[in-house]
Amino acid sequence: MQTVSAMDQSALTAKETDLTARLAEFTAQNLNLDMTRGKPCTAQLDLSLSLLSAPGRHFNAADGSDCRNYGGLDGLPEMKALFAELLDTAAEQIIVGGNSSLTLMYDALVRAKLFGVPDGDGPWTHQGNLKFLCPSPGYDRHFAITEHLGFELIPVDMTADGPDIQRIEELVAADPGIRGIWCVPKYSNPTGVTYADAIVKRLAAMPTAAPDFRIIWDNAYAEHHLTGEADALLNILPECQRAGHENRALVFASTSKMSFPGAGVAVMAASPENIADAKQHLAMQTIGPDKLNQLRHLELLPNLESVRAHMRHHAEVIKPKFDAVQRILHRELDGTGAATWTNPRGGYFVSLDTGDGCARNAVRLAAQAGVKFTAAGAPFPYGRDPRDRNIRIAPTFPTLEEIETAMQVLATCVLLAVVRQGLRAG
Amino acid sequence: MQTVSAMDQSALTAKETDLTARLAEFTAQNLNLDMTRGKPCTAQLDLSLSLLSAPGRHFNAADGSDCRNYGGLDGLPEMKALFAELLDTAAEQIIVGGNSSLTLMYDALVRAKLFGVPDGDGPWTHQGNLKFLCPSPGYDRHFAITEHLGFELIPVDMTADGPDIQRIEELVAADPGIRGIWCVPKYSNPTGVTYADAIVKRLAAMPTAAPDFRIIWDNAYAEHHLTGEADALLNILPECQRAGHENRALVFASTSKMSFPGAGVAVMAASPENIADAKQHLAMQTIGPDKLNQLRHLELLPNLESVRAHMRHHAEVIKPKFDAVQRILHRELDGTGAATWTNPRGGYFVSLDTGDGCARNAVRLAAQAGVKFTAAGAPFPYGRDPRDRNIRIAPTFPTLEEIETAMQVLATCVLLAVVRQGLRAG
Repeated sequence: MQTVSAMDQSALTAKETDLTARLAEFTAQNLNLDMTRGKPCTAQLDLSLSLLSAPGRHFNAADGSDCRNYGGLDGLPEMKALFAELLDTAAEQIIVGGNSSLTLMYDALVRAKLFGVPDGDGPWTHQGNLKFLCPSPGYDRHFAITEHLGFELIPVDMTADGPDIQRIEELVAADPGIRGIWCVPKYSNPTGVTYADAIVKRLAAMPTAAPDFRIIWDNAYAEHHLTGEADALLNILPECQRAGHENRALVFASTSKMSFPGAGVAVMAASPENIADAKQHLAMQTIGPDKLNQLRHLELLPNLESVRAHMRHHAEVIKPKFDAVQRILHRELDGTGAATWTNPRGGYFVSLDTGDGCARNAVRLAAQAGVKFTAAGAPFPYGRDPRDRNIRIAPTFPTLEEIETAMQVLATCVLLAVVRQGLRAG
Repeated sequence: MQTVSAMDQSALTAKETDLTARLAEFTAQNLNLDMTRGKPCTAQLDLSLSLLSAPGRHFNAADGSDCRNYGGLDGLPEMKALFAELLDTAAEQIIVGGNSSLTLMYDALVRAKLFGVPDGDGPWTHQGNLKFLCPSPGYDRHFAITEHLGFELIPVDMTADGPDIQRIEELVAADPGIRGIWCVPKYSNPTGVTYADAIVKRLAAMPTAAPDFRIIWDNAYAEHHLTGEADALLNILPECQRAGHENRALVFASTSKMSFPGAGVAVMAASPENIADAKQHLAMQTIGPDKLNQLRHLELLPNLESVRAHMRHHAEVIKPKFDAVQRILHRELDGTGAATWTNPRGGYFVSLDTGDGCARNAVRLAAQAGVKFTAAGAPFPYGRDPRDRNIRIAPTFPTLEEIETAMQVLATCVLLAVVRQGLRAG
């Protein structure tokens, strides 16, 4: 196949006619497909059906306490132990929260604003124009939290190894206003990249102008492998400690994409000082997390081994969907030069880059044909992709058949956008 | 029986000897009783056992959505409808939260600090020394939240009709730094008072120097009657609206003391503008509350009628305990002039006032005899009871037998503290 960039105007015109006709055929099918949502499908949810009638009559924690009643601020000891194993840290460095790790991150930043954090100089609200680093493309809801809380968002490019660490080092060394960075370090949203060990070490060790710089380490996909070969992620907490920055990293995880996204269990892991600091505020904010939901989860997922077995079942459900994305995109786009895309070994997304200036057009064309993709630009600070080239694909929720159709539509729209750009440029 | 105040020194000395000997008998029993905790007993928790295996295979909401997955910010429509009925307001004016109404209150005040509230002038953090009114005795965890968030706490006396409204009117009219008041308007913690209609109307209508004054209306005991005659509480939301202060009241409630304190469902009700304001922040803070737990609760408590029937069962369990408190206190203290106490028609507490300067001594003596009461002073701002006379009694959790013993110990200690004060004064 000829690459689009090598086509002359008459070839482009012919191709545009072809693609327009093909898109019209899809449009005629009255499709109504949604590829926007990084959420599990029904077959995945059904893997945890036993939760729906748990814990039954077993409402006591291992220490004998009645989980139905008041008591306990930071989670059941057995739930802390499970997450300690999962995150390779000490149970004392875990706080179990409610059903949303996003809430734990938001609240951590709210505490920083209102009260300050260890190593810092009091409430961040009183410290002028503060900034947050946003490796991009990244997770839109992360960026939205810091925008909402008044931080200026500083984009940093994602590379195949993690965020552009040299750029980060330069920025944080120079500017005390930069107070943190968002990281999805494993199977990152949306590029699927797992941070290389060297990147983790440099993030932990880099000198920062702000003494209370924080890494929000959202390990959302810690056990969410798609293949038999799990990516290995270096544990950031001991790296920070070794580098003399023990309080730098706040680690988050949850069972949202293990059990039920709407009714899971979320946790924060951090240094003893950060944990003690968080607890003194939580003691005012809450009566403690839902202990019965922790009991339920411990029945389904009593240990790391059971988590891994459970996650293999998830992979069995969704791997064919990710494979379909690859298959169709290769079939339709190989040789066109119109796009490159990731082939992740875990996580929930495929990230596609088309020609600069073509992503919004492609997404708009697909929407007109009845196939919704995440708004182009959404994975970038302020929703603006500076090159307007990135499209996020979320294959877990739709059926295999829907994905196959949606990918054909996307490939057609990407090609059409690139061809039309060629025509305009000619 | 002779009142203590009428006793001469020799009578006091004899009485002190008697009481000391009696207390020594209790101490010899090696008691270990805890009357501090306003939490349901096991028999109460057992009323909601069906929650432990719910919702079973019924995981869809009334609108067909899968409650296991992501989606929904402010609660299931059917759960909003239930609380709307319970709080006599519109479902659109309800936000369903997680398992803790205390968290909803804390977060509402955090939002006020960081972002400001409708009718106000931006973030409260930038507005100098702010204050909060604390009707006392009241709920220690309320006062602790505002102390933690940097408000100055202003005590206001509780009367038999509610807080001292004339004092409140004077304070809020004069000082724009006063931004709110804590209220437990029904079967209040700990005095059991339900605010009179006139008090509710004046709270809603009073002019305030701060345009964004807020009433935190913690209706924790809305349906928590002890007798067949339920107290009636005037609905504050329409009263505020009628008075032109539509955004003044934030109403909170929960199922904590209906179902399970650790795993219930909490809500906020407020004006449409307050609700819209809260939602724009919640959209950043959370993926939404646990919908499965709402489904569970809707199975147990599908409507107001079922809530009321359920609460009658609670009353059957705990009314004998409250009766025992009254019986023993009357038997031991009538005619002594050493104490007065409330006889609540609902809620979770009995509030006892002994002689000025005697509460801490009485609580200390009881602790030495193996019976723990809430720290004297705890129900007051900064934990300081200016008259050192109030003792909070929480009869729900211990057994009837434990309560009978504990009340005998308390009566003995109260008398002893008053007698010793008389001896010192003599």
